[in-house]
Amino acid sequence: MLGRLNHVAIAVPDLEAASAIYRDALGAKLSDPQALPEHGVTVVFIDTGNSKIELMEPLGEGSPIAAFLEKNPSGGMHHVCYEVEDIAAARDRLQATGARILGDGNPKTGAHGKPVLFLHPKDFLGTLVELEQV
Amino acid sequence: MLGRLNHVAIAVPDLEAASAIYRDALGAKLSDPQALPEHGVTVVFIDTGNSKIELMEPLGEGSPIAAFLEKNPSGGMHHVCYEVEDIAAARDRLQATGARILGDGNPKTGAHGKPVLFLHPKDFLGTLVELEQV
Repeated sequence: MLGRLNHVAIAVPDLEAASAIYRDALGAKLSDPQALPEHGVTVVFIDTGNSKIELMEPLGEGSPIAAFLEKNPSGGMHHVCYEVEDIAAARDRLQATGARILGDGNPKTGAHGKPVLFLHPKDFLGTLVELEQV
Repeated sequence: MLGRLNHVAIAVPDLEAASAIYRDALGAKLSDPQALPEHGVTVVFIDTGNSKIELMEPLGEGSPIAAFLEKNPSGGMHHVCYEVEDIAAARDRLQATGARILGDGNPKTGAHGKPVLFLHPKDFLGTLVELEQV
């Protein structure tokens, strides 16, 4: 079931400064910033050819990455996103193994407009895992 | 200069248990465990088609991931590795921007037998970055 590594998301306190680091020190190719108010983040994508890095800065009140940045003020790796073909089948398999799905256990529309699930980090080696149906 | 996302490394306290989670709950395709005593880790690779996840368990005394696991006992995302074509040119560019390279600043032979550099997390958004010449 596990498909491609769609992206690695890095939470950052200052998207402009973070973009400058990736552009100037690492020579990365960056997208323009994209505000996603319904997800509480502004993002910049880094195209690595085979996959993507998503730099995320909090947007508005109650951003879902605000608490993470309080604990990690310089930023840090926030989650990894894997592609799956069938998110409902993925959910059923996960629930059968006892793995916890965040929220009410049903797919939501993710930041890319596709159905996603987030899995509990305690069940996945301290790593927040997003599954996205592609 | 920034090339492909070569892998994401996840430090884990128990490689067998971690492998079972990725295999059973996520349906991932796993390599056999590979002991790398000169790097102080035993690793299992997960092939995502476009990239790799590297599960790493400490091996022997003084493993470089022992301190990380003390702070993150359930495991966690340890580093991301990007490919570069010319590691010496990458080092020069990084040093010109003031970014800190771990160790003596010169490429070492990494876990895959290729020249690598590790960059200071404080200069890269709280993220340990490995560059690997491919």
